[in-house]
Amino acid sequence: MYDYLVLGAGIVGLATAYHLKRLDPDASILVVDKGSGPGSGDTGRSAAAFRAFFTNRANMLLASSSIRFYRGIQESGFDLGMRFIGYLWLLDERSRRRVEAGLREADRLGLPYEHVDPDLVAERLGVRVDVEGSEEAELAGLGSIVDAVLVKEAGILDPDRLVEYYYEKLVSAGVHFAFNTEVETLIVEPRRPLGIEGEPFPWQDARVAGVKTSQGEIRAAKKVVAALGAWCESMLRTIGVDAVSKPKKRQVFTLRAASEKLEAMLNARGFNEYGIMPFTLLPRGVYIRPEPRERAFWVGVSDDLGRPFELEEPPALEENFYTLGILPVLSTYVPELAGAYPSGGWAGHYDITPDGLPVVYEPYESDLIVACGTSGSGIMKGDAVGRVAASLALGMDEAELASGLSMPVRWLGVQGRMAERELLII
Amino acid sequence: MYDYLVLGAGIVGLATAYHLKRLDPDASILVVDKGSGPGSGDTGRSAAAFRAFFTNRANMLLASSSIRFYRGIQESGFDLGMRFIGYLWLLDERSRRRVEAGLREADRLGLPYEHVDPDLVAERLGVRVDVEGSEEAELAGLGSIVDAVLVKEAGILDPDRLVEYYYEKLVSAGVHFAFNTEVETLIVEPRRPLGIEGEPFPWQDARVAGVKTSQGEIRAAKKVVAALGAWCESMLRTIGVDAVSKPKKRQVFTLRAASEKLEAMLNARGFNEYGIMPFTLLPRGVYIRPEPRERAFWVGVSDDLGRPFELEEPPALEENFYTLGILPVLSTYVPELAGAYPSGGWAGHYDITPDGLPVVYEPYESDLIVACGTSGSGIMKGDAVGRVAASLALGMDEAELASGLSMPVRWLGVQGRMAERELLII
Repeated sequence: MYDYLVLGAGIVGLATAYHLKRLDPDASILVVDKGSGPGSGDTGRSAAAFRAFFTNRANMLLASSSIRFYRGIQESGFDLGMRFIGYLWLLDERSRRRVEAGLREADRLGLPYEHVDPDLVAERLGVRVDVEGSEEAELAGLGSIVDAVLVKEAGILDPDRLVEYYYEKLVSAGVHFAFNTEVETLIVEPRRPLGIEGEPFPWQDARVAGVKTSQGEIRAAKKVVAALGAWCESMLRTIGVDAVSKPKKRQVFTLRAASEKLEAMLNARGFNEYGIMPFTLLPRGVYIRPEPRERAFWVGVSDDLGRPFELEEPPALEENFYTLGILPVLSTYVPELAGAYPSGGWAGHYDITPDGLPVVYEPYESDLIVACGTSGSGIMKGDAVGRVAASLALGMDEAELASGLSMPVRWLGVQGRMAERELLII
Repeated sequence: MYDYLVLGAGIVGLATAYHLKRLDPDASILVVDKGSGPGSGDTGRSAAAFRAFFTNRANMLLASSSIRFYRGIQESGFDLGMRFIGYLWLLDERSRRRVEAGLREADRLGLPYEHVDPDLVAERLGVRVDVEGSEEAELAGLGSIVDAVLVKEAGILDPDRLVEYYYEKLVSAGVHFAFNTEVETLIVEPRRPLGIEGEPFPWQDARVAGVKTSQGEIRAAKKVVAALGAWCESMLRTIGVDAVSKPKKRQVFTLRAASEKLEAMLNARGFNEYGIMPFTLLPRGVYIRPEPRERAFWVGVSDDLGRPFELEEPPALEENFYTLGILPVLSTYVPELAGAYPSGGWAGHYDITPDGLPVVYEPYESDLIVACGTSGSGIMKGDAVGRVAASLALGMDEAELASGLSMPVRWLGVQGRMAERELLII
């Protein structure tokens, strides 16, 4: 019997356990995961980019607090591979129109960003900005790059190092881990059991008392935190709890910087102090993330309408998805990559809420804390989501953030949620 | 090819088609349903109670507008069986604490309600309000009724009559219906098809162009409205659209007023002009709805934690659910019903959103309008939900309500949603 059970040793589970232990040092905590070590699910499959550039106040607080916390770790000498290389949005006429309201709101909020002349981008990155007359661009409905937006409070990190950081801290603080332990069901019981077959009945106060796992039953005296990411929905719906989020497959492809021109692109100067290209977003949601240590690019795209919400286990890379789904955009703006072929890659799942904001709430006063729905922002918001989940588990209305600011816990809940429209969606 | 396809001939689909036709009289509209007639899904299985008594502004506008619209129909001579018999909440100490904040907010908002002396309730309804010393009450954790709240702007109606009203109006306005027509999949297509296998690709603008049904393909030039209620989630997730709601089974049991005392309860005086008992809520979510024409009561309860979100087709009545889930509460407060046994009943599904507010939105500019998640309030909010869905389908930002007020369409959306906590949840 532990005080707290945390289900899932991904970024959200780790951060939740970390802040629970920080806020309640005497508590006994067990983190359960079906993987053989921490971060072995979608956390380790993240493209791990971050930005403090959102219009929704909750998004902004979550990201800026997490980035600040990670920066502190990095500066303390524990290398997270954190590089503030910036985000660069390349906008054609259509995407410019889409992001216009977001940039106006950013101006109003005083969020810093810069416009960069597309010709300068062309020169520094070697991308093609003028696609007039290209038959491929015409067919795909892609326009010339008419504006570029650079956000400097943004960058990349190494998710495995972040996982190691939390894991080391947690182990040395006495938090327990049960790996290779798959949660089969959540145990729902009345608070005052009568010993009648079929309990709990609707008139009984019921709670989530623990879990049945592949290694036996484990119970929690206080709270069970479901930080199950893409597995949240299917696990929770069996006991009538809405995870608010759903899993969707995502893929990352690795392209080697195998030519002089691509090397020059990877090591583009003028955008940041590292001499690395920024995390770059092309029109239609295609991104290029530099991975300088591998002398490679990671590329991907968000495909929304059409692809079902479902878990694929294990998720497989689809060659056609690169060739037909990404390459037409990539080769239009980066002709040098037209002939490249992925040297590898991986697939995983996003855990997506309808509004893109993570969800943290306790349904039906059940002692179950749902902490999921990071919607592809697990790394960049994970630490703060853990703070909110830990605060809720401890019965607090507010979560103290790394920035010193605090955030109402209900902003990530299902009622009282911070429902402002996020205008800076990629 | 129709201008608009409405999937589902339940209350939301009917109301949406009705207001679409009203706002766009020249539009061609087809309503598709797998049932053999309108309202043959969960609409016809509703307990069909209504109240204009909510603290969330969107809930309040939806209910008050719908009630006003139905009242107009009733007063025009088309009998909806609409009776303003009131809602009566019987509160033990625990449920009083739960509803306290809601009542304070109701005071602030000026929502009318009355406190009724529990002894007067005992006298008029014949319920037992003092349960001190009852072993059964003690075991079930039920307390004496310490307060009763009567809401007069509330009552019951006949859902079949409401369905008939919309259906007659729609048929005479030239709206088409395809019954016995099951939607198999939604057709997702690029707006500018290239004829390449695997379309649409992520870089293409895609839309929901129609549906494949058991009777063949049907296409929509303008919008497809998914008013599929409990079937929304499973249908939409296959194309990567989040219905925001999930289906949960609910049951209604019929008890005959087979004694003089029960007859007197059914025909309780002093609460309304009809000489009918109000729709009465006991502690722990058990309700008693009078059905005077059948000389019967309908009883049910909301069971939340534990029962999975799933579709059961067809949903079956569970005898044990009455005996173990409802009867302990019912027999504590209405001893006369202790020996009664249901003469019948039926089961159906609620279509529940995490915050209890219906959802109306157009994901990914896809020409698909999601209109579902009425969360057990389909009858009481249905007409207004249809107004919002029709307004969104026509590209309007605001929906005009029956009350003459208007409501921002985004209040039911996924971003910009009216996220105020609803404090008057039963």
